[in-house]
Amino acid sequence: MSEKLSTSPYKGTRDFYPREMQLRNWFFGVIREVLENSAFDEYNGPMLESLDIYAAKSGEELACEQTYNFFDRGERHLAIRPEMTPTVARMVAAKMGELNFPLRWFSIPNMYRYERPQRGRLREFWQINVDIFGCDTYEADLECIISAINILRAYGADESMFTVHINNRRFFNDVISAIAGTDAEGSRKVSKVIDRKNKIPRNAYENELIELGLSEEQIERIDALYTMGVEEATDICPDSQGAQELRQLFEMLKKTGLDRYCIFDFGIIRGLDYYTGTVFEVFDNAPENNRAMFGGGRYDNLVGLYVKNAKISGVGYGMGDVTLENFLFTHNLVPEKLGSGVKVLVTRFNDVPYENYIQLAESLRAAGITSSVYLGSKKFGKQIDFAVKEDYTHVITMGGDELARGVVRLKDLNTREEQELSVDAVIDALKA
Amino acid sequence: MSEKLSTSPYKGTRDFYPREMQLRNWFFGVIREVLENSAFDEYNGPMLESLDIYAAKSGEELACEQTYNFFDRGERHLAIRPEMTPTVARMVAAKMGELNFPLRWFSIPNMYRYERPQRGRLREFWQINVDIFGCDTYEADLECIISAINILRAYGADESMFTVHINNRRFFNDVISAIAGTDAEGSRKVSKVIDRKNKIPRNAYENELIELGLSEEQIERIDALYTMGVEEATDICPDSQGAQELRQLFEMLKKTGLDRYCIFDFGIIRGLDYYTGTVFEVFDNAPENNRAMFGGGRYDNLVGLYVKNAKISGVGYGMGDVTLENFLFTHNLVPEKLGSGVKVLVTRFNDVPYENYIQLAESLRAAGITSSVYLGSKKFGKQIDFAVKEDYTHVITMGGDELARGVVRLKDLNTREEQELSVDAVIDALKA
Repeated sequence: MSEKLSTSPYKGTRDFYPREMQLRNWFFGVIREVLENSAFDEYNGPMLESLDIYAAKSGEELACEQTYNFFDRGERHLAIRPEMTPTVARMVAAKMGELNFPLRWFSIPNMYRYERPQRGRLREFWQINVDIFGCDTYEADLECIISAINILRAYGADESMFTVHINNRRFFNDVISAIAGTDAEGSRKVSKVIDRKNKIPRNAYENELIELGLSEEQIERIDALYTMGVEEATDICPDSQGAQELRQLFEMLKKTGLDRYCIFDFGIIRGLDYYTGTVFEVFDNAPENNRAMFGGGRYDNLVGLYVKNAKISGVGYGMGDVTLENFLFTHNLVPEKLGSGVKVLVTRFNDVPYENYIQLAESLRAAGITSSVYLGSKKFGKQIDFAVKEDYTHVITMGGDELARGVVRLKDLNTREEQELSVDAVIDALKA
Repeated sequence: MSEKLSTSPYKGTRDFYPREMQLRNWFFGVIREVLENSAFDEYNGPMLESLDIYAAKSGEELACEQTYNFFDRGERHLAIRPEMTPTVARMVAAKMGELNFPLRWFSIPNMYRYERPQRGRLREFWQINVDIFGCDTYEADLECIISAINILRAYGADESMFTVHINNRRFFNDVISAIAGTDAEGSRKVSKVIDRKNKIPRNAYENELIELGLSEEQIERIDALYTMGVEEATDICPDSQGAQELRQLFEMLKKTGLDRYCIFDFGIIRGLDYYTGTVFEVFDNAPENNRAMFGGGRYDNLVGLYVKNAKISGVGYGMGDVTLENFLFTHNLVPEKLGSGVKVLVTRFNDVPYENYIQLAESLRAAGITSSVYLGSKKFGKQIDFAVKEDYTHVITMGGDELARGVVRLKDLNTREEQELSVDAVIDALKA
C-alpha cells in the first residue's frame, strides 16, 4: 500500500474526539436525567431494520430515497434506521400482551438519513425519542410537551430562547372542512399544500388551492388562521373534537404556568399522514437557527401495522442532536468546564522501581480518585506539560528520596501549591 | 396494507426493552467508571466508513465478506463498521499534530458483522475498545491489561472466574525461528497454521507444518511450548526482544500482585497480521463460555496507513457486550435490583383538578425525586397495580378531601405504611 487512505470521516458524519465526546456525554446526560426524573424508561432497538417498516409508513419510494438501504445475502431488503418510531411501534406490538400500559419510553439512538448535509442536518445523527403509548387523552400530549420544556430548562434555557408551537390535526381537518366545505380526503389534500406554504411562491400556493376547488375568499379565511389565538381559531368549529382537545391542552398549560413557553400555530402540520391529534414543534428563537429543533405529536395506532385489531395510541417527539447542539452554543448554554474534577498524574523518575508507581496509582483509583502514571520516559518538565494539556488538576511526584522517606509531593496545578504528604494523607487531601 | 409486518428484530440483532436497557446502562456504566477513573478519555466515530480502511487491514475479500457493505449514490463503497481499530487509527492520523501523546482512549460503539448468529456472537453488538497510542514500551501493554482486570473486578469477578492469557508475537516469531530455522516469512506461515491448531484435526495440523519444512521433532518442540511457563519458554531464545518484553511484563505483573489473574499461553496468537508485540486474550473460566471474552495486543503503526512516515505505536483491546453479558450472568454478577431508588406515582381522582396533580409531580421532580402522574382514568386499585408492576416505590394519593386540607397521603409500597403529610413534608420524607 503506497497510496495513503483518507483521514476524513464519511460525508455528513462526525468524529467525536474526547472533547466533543465529553460535550455529548454531558448533553445526553442532562436529557437522561430529566426523563428518568419524570419516570420515563430507556429502550433501544437495532440499527438495521427491514425496509418494510419504513415503506409502510412513507411509501417504498420515499423510504428508499431517504435511507441507506441494501439487500443482505438472504435477499432481505434492509435499511439503516432513519427514525425510531417504526422500531418502537414494532417493539410495542411484539410484547403487547406483556407490557404495562401506559408506557413512558425514551431512547437516544444513532441513525442515518441520506440527504445533503447542511447547517443543522447531517447524514449521521442521534435523536432523542420520547413516547407515551396507551393513553388516549390530552394528558399524555401535555406530559410530552412538559418533558420537552423540562429538558430545555435543565440546560438553563428560558422562554426567550425557545417556543413550543402547537396545533391539532383533527382541528386542522375540521376547520378546513368548515371553511372550504371539503370532505376528509379533500382536507388531506389541502393540508399537503398548506404544509408546503413557506417552501413555494405565494401564487403557486394559491393556484394549488384553487385547483382543489377553494375560492379566494376561502383562501383568505385560511390565511387569517395564522394570526389567530387558540380561542378565536377554535371558535370557527367549536364542536370539533380537535378544537376541544386544543382548548383543553391550552387551558392546562395556562393553569400550570407553562403557557409562557407555548403558542398556538396553525402553520404546524407535520407532513406525515399518521399524525391524528395534537402536533407540535419546538423552535429555537435565535434567528440564525430559525427552524424547528424538534417536533412530534399524537399518532394513533401505528402498532396496528403489526398486529391485527390492535388499537394502541401513541404520542411522542424526536429531537436531533445537531440542532440541539446549535441551540446550546447559540444561547451560551454550554458550561466552560465539563470535566468532573480531580485528575491526578503520577510522574515518573528512573530511580524508582515502576511497580511503586503502579501501586500508587492503583491506591488512588481504589479510593475513587482519577489517576494514571505517566507513560513514557520524558523529562519531568515534559511530563508536567502533558498534565496541563490533558486537564490533569494535580501532579504527584515521588523520586528515590521521597520513596525512601515514605512520602510523595502533591502539586495543585491550579494554585501551584505543593505539599509533601504520606500516601494516605494525599488520598484524604484529594478527596476533600 | 392488509398484510401485517413482522414484529421480530432483524436476524442477529436485539431489541432492548426497558429492563434489558437498564442492565446495559448498568454494565456500560461500570466500564465507563473504571476507565474514566484510570484517566482514559471516551471518543466515538461514525457507524459508516469507507470500505477501504477495512480492506487495507484484512484484504478486500475478507472485508467484503465480513461486513455489511454497499455503494452510496456517489459510488463510494461503504461498510458498517465491524470493528473500531481502523476508525480510531484514522482519527489519530487526522489530528496527529494536535494530539497530546500518549493518548489513553476508549469507546463503546455499536457495530455489525455479517456472520451466523450463535452463542456469544451476534450480528449487531457493542464493543468496548481501549487503546493507548504513542508509548512504545511495555508499560502501556501493562496498563491495558490492568484496565481489563479492573473492569472485571469492578463487577465483583475474581481470579477463579477469568484468566488473562498472554503471549508476544515477536517472541513467537523468534522462538519458531529458533526451533524450525525459518525466516520471518516462514515464521509467519507457521503462525497461521498454529493459529488454527484447535480448529483442525491433529494430522492436518502436522501435515501443514511438515509441508512448511518442519520435522516431527521440531513439531514436538513446538508442542512442548504450550505447557511451559514464561521463564522456561523464553529461555529458548533469551536474547529475543519479544522474550525480554514478556519477562519484563510478567515480572511487573508479579510485583503488583496481578499475576494471579494471568498466565503465559503460547497458543495466543491473534490471527491478524498487524499485531507486533504483546498479545492477550481474557478467558471466561466457566466451561459453558469457554472462549475468549476479549483480546488485543500491540499493533505498531496502524496510523501509517493514513500518514506518510508516521510512526505511532498502539496497544489496545476490544471487549464484546454479548460474551461479557454471558460472563456476568454465568457467574451471578448481575445485581438483583438495578433501579436507582425512590420512584413515586401520583394517583389521580376525578374530583381534583388535573393541574394540581401536575404541580405536585413537578414539585417532586424539581426536588430530584422521580415521579409521574398516572395517565388515564382507571380505578384506584388499577393505578396501584400499575405502580407495583412498574417498580414504583411509593404512591401519593390526593383526593378532594386531602386537597381541601392541604395534605397528601404517602404510601410506601414495600412496607405498606401510609402517612398523611404536607407536600413539603413528603419531599423531605422521600429525600431522607
